Amino acid sequence: MAGMGRVTERRRVIRVRDGAVSARADTLVGEEPLEIRVNGRRLAVTMRTPGDDFALASGFLVSEGVLADPAELARIAYCAGAEGPDGANTYNVVDVRLADGVPGPDVSLDRRVFTNSSCGLCGRVSLDTVRTTARWPLPLPRGPRLDPAVLAELPDRLRAAQRVFARTGGLHAAALCTADGSLLDVREDVGRHNAVDKIVGHALTSGALPLSGTVLLVSGRASFELVQKAVLAGIPTLAAVSAPSALAVDLAAETGMTLVGFLRGASMNVYSGAERLGLVDDESPDTASEGTR
Amino acid sequence: MAGMGRVTERRRVIRVRDGAVSARADTLVGEEPLEIRVNGRRLAVTMRTPGDDFALASGFLVSEGVLADPAELARIAYCAGAEGPDGANTYNVVDVRLADGVPGPDVSLDRRVFTNSSCGLCGRVSLDTVRTTARWPLPLPRGPRLDPAVLAELPDRLRAAQRVFARTGGLHAAALCTADGSLLDVREDVGRHNAVDKIVGHALTSGALPLSGTVLLVSGRASFELVQKAVLAGIPTLAAVSAPSALAVDLAAETGMTLVGFLRGASMNVYSGAERLGLVDDESPDTASEGTR
Repeated sequence: MAGMGRVTERRRVIRVRDGAVSARADTLVGEEPLEIRVNGRRLAVTMRTPGDDFALASGFLVSEGVLADPAELARIAYCAGAEGPDGANTYNVVDVRLADGVPGPDVSLDRRVFTNSSCGLCGRVSLDTVRTTARWPLPLPRGPRLDPAVLAELPDRLRAAQRVFARTGGLHAAALCTADGSLLDVREDVGRHNAVDKIVGHALTSGALPLSGTVLLVSGRASFELVQKAVLAGIPTLAAVSAPSALAVDLAAETGMTLVGFLRGASMNVYSGAERLGLVDDESPDTASEGTR
Repeated sequence: MAGMGRVTERRRVIRVRDGAVSARADTLVGEEPLEIRVNGRRLAVTMRTPGDDFALASGFLVSEGVLADPAELARIAYCAGAEGPDGANTYNVVDVRLADGVPGPDVSLDRRVFTNSSCGLCGRVSLDTVRTTARWPLPLPRGPRLDPAVLAELPDRLRAAQRVFARTGGLHAAALCTADGSLLDVREDVGRHNAVDKIVGHALTSGALPLSGTVLLVSGRASFELVQKAVLAGIPTLAAVSAPSALAVDLAAETGMTLVGFLRGASMNVYSGAERLGLVDDESPDTASEGTR
């Protein structure tokens, strides 16, 4: 294991193909711990694919409601003195210095736990925490209109842009697009949340938050946390190649987000915000006829 | 949102199929936060599919090195007083009481951070933490021998046993099998780690740890953390339908685990421990001929 993490690493593999056995070198995705510090204090550790580490750390802090404007970020650097066994910097510890007067993160163990009740914890609490953490007014603005035909093309574009996945088969990806389908950014990571954090972190430092008018596409499922990250970045439409959870749908509906699942070619399921896709009337989102099960 | 979480929930969806738009009710996987307390103190919150919560909590503590024997677990219960907005228990807070004399978990923010160095953090540290946390001698015992043909049948068996996935398409799964391919347990969850924790928790309470002689199959990728959970449960073989990371391979190799990736029918990649599959000689694991890239 080298000191500095890499996006991919080579390992020996024994391949079995219909009874034939051979040994060869294989390219695998890199995975290393990243410790995120804020003003010198440890906040979190995530297992991530090395690269885009500053974007990952700052995007993570957007999801926590700490950062929303590039001026709030004073400096970000690898921690000096973070040496591995070989004496070289591991580049696995990042320290984010906030600008003067910017409140640091809530240091409770987990932001999803809203602790004003004695012991209660439920999906409702998770939804409320997002609402109180958001740095922009919710629900999200109504626009822009999106053509479903534009959405239908995005999975192929994402796959074409996944360079590391093509070599390793081991990565999640997230893509940020305009409403007319142009790719703004694509990031890959062993962790699905990290790929989104990297996109949001890049948007933060280029002053693009909130990401009004964009579409976020993710390669896997749409969990509650992915919807949360999209809301905190001001992204009005989240599309996933696979299924959402019920709580993800509830959060999207509450925050005025368009949530699309099972996006596969011209087929898709729209779980909330169908009016943005022109599929239901703006004023009355229940005008599409009820089908039978 | 009802008070008590459910494995599946119904939501309205607007379906687009080649231009045809219809509305219907859809079955989605449930996702709710679970707070895990140990002796009344909050340890972690995970987003999980409700059900098997006691197994999830105790399996999580096996992965932390806290539990390895059922006698170490005194009592596990939903926290009384954990009421949601409707006044009913949310069943989302679990308290694990350890038997007298059982040391509680390390309360550092994240177990993967080994804090005896001033600032360093690298994959090497992650590997060492697993070694010092394990409750059984490492490397794992050499046995049992496994027939690759048995492995080849497991993905189909796992899919056939995934009942919730069949309805929602939204779940990860993990299956525990014997060396001759018999299914011992199958669990599903929105979180891949949770499905493994649920399997390990059930094994703990039935006195089956360490799970020597078993195979763990997971539906997705093999991350470092999944290998870590398998090591802490004493599972000698981990097979994944998709790719492993480089650090996952390193941990498997160090702990004497057989790690299989891209398990698809009779095709598979063996990244470590190929001798358990009879693919290389026991004494010299490098005897398979090197192929060309």
